Amino acid sequence: MPDRGEATTPTRAQPYDTDRVVDVAVQVFLERGYDRASMGDIARAAGLGKSSLYHHVTGKEELLERGLRRALDALFAALKEPAASTGPAVDRLRTMIRRTVEIMCEQLPEVALLLRVRGNTETERWVLERRREFDRLMARLVKDAITAGDVRADLDPGLVTRLVFGMSNSIVEWYRPGGSVRPQRIIDHITTIVFEGLTREA
Amino acid sequence: MPDRGEATTPTRAQPYDTDRVVDVAVQVFLERGYDRASMGDIARAAGLGKSSLYHHVTGKEELLERGLRRALDALFAALKEPAASTGPAVDRLRTMIRRTVEIMCEQLPEVALLLRVRGNTETERWVLERRREFDRLMARLVKDAITAGDVRADLDPGLVTRLVFGMSNSIVEWYRPGGSVRPQRIIDHITTIVFEGLTREA
Repeated sequence: MPDRGEATTPTRAQPYDTDRVVDVAVQVFLERGYDRASMGDIARAAGLGKSSLYHHVTGKEELLERGLRRALDALFAALKEPAASTGPAVDRLRTMIRRTVEIMCEQLPEVALLLRVRGNTETERWVLERRREFDRLMARLVKDAITAGDVRADLDPGLVTRLVFGMSNSIVEWYRPGGSVRPQRIIDHITTIVFEGLTREA
Repeated sequence: MPDRGEATTPTRAQPYDTDRVVDVAVQVFLERGYDRASMGDIARAAGLGKSSLYHHVTGKEELLERGLRRALDALFAALKEPAASTGPAVDRLRTMIRRTVEIMCEQLPEVALLLRVRGNTETERWVLERRREFDRLMARLVKDAITAGDVRADLDPGLVTRLVFGMSNSIVEWYRPGGSVRPQRIIDHITTIVFEGLTREA
């Protein structure tokens, strides 16, 4: 329940919430590119005056950070879910592939933006470091699954991680929410290819 | 052997060949984005005057077309090689996955540019149509391999094609020629994951 006392005595006008401003900013960054997009572009797309925008955030970089945090927070939170944090490494790996696809499908613009980050600003460098940390944790899972004897031992864990998550990340190129291909169908295909392979057993 | 007679009587100064101009243009398009890059940017990067550039090509769109044709021609030529055009569909599919990775590693900038095309110009729309044609041929291979009983039948050929080539395309994000990961190692990993899967046989 909202605190009605507070709601009736606002300290300043907030007709638009910050989350909605972040939604708009993420779209503008995807369309124009972060470097080219200006606070003026975002204000225009949001239907706000530029000065109103500064009631919500300190500037463009904060909008980028807030947008990318949504995707990163979801990915790191998934790691703490029971199915991803307990049990055999191979099952945890399977869970994380599924959760990554689900998060991409739910937060498609944020993940698409995350995958484009190249490290030109302080925020982007921080984001790249978080992505590398995530990749290291996934490579560790692959390695642990090999040690446990559940994943074949003739593969390099780091390269497997890049390729498997390269496959799942590639869906941002064509996945559209509400389209004919459902997330569960993508997850089934990815996990079958990755764990069982295409070859039909004789 | 070059025709010496022609070489000693040039009809106009050609101190720089067109292929080299295309190399430079592809780099400029990758760095600035095709829409933002100008003929002036390309001339500067090539160390040529802008008017010299027009001795080689009619404009920016021709440079894009010539760059992208390199990647497309290589991919379609691979389809006609004996190992890709005769024998069981599953072997032809395996060959095409290998050849696609080889072509990406050999022509990394051209393929990276190809993967970024969004259809904003006539050339880009033509390129997207060629890419779709390539994807249709690959999906046909997957379908034929299922019909032949070599690939599991519980998967959708179109979705398999997107995911498998999504995995191989993802290497443009991190592969660097001359780096520690060799193309053959990438090919071995992709074909093992795609055909055999990660699960260690009991």
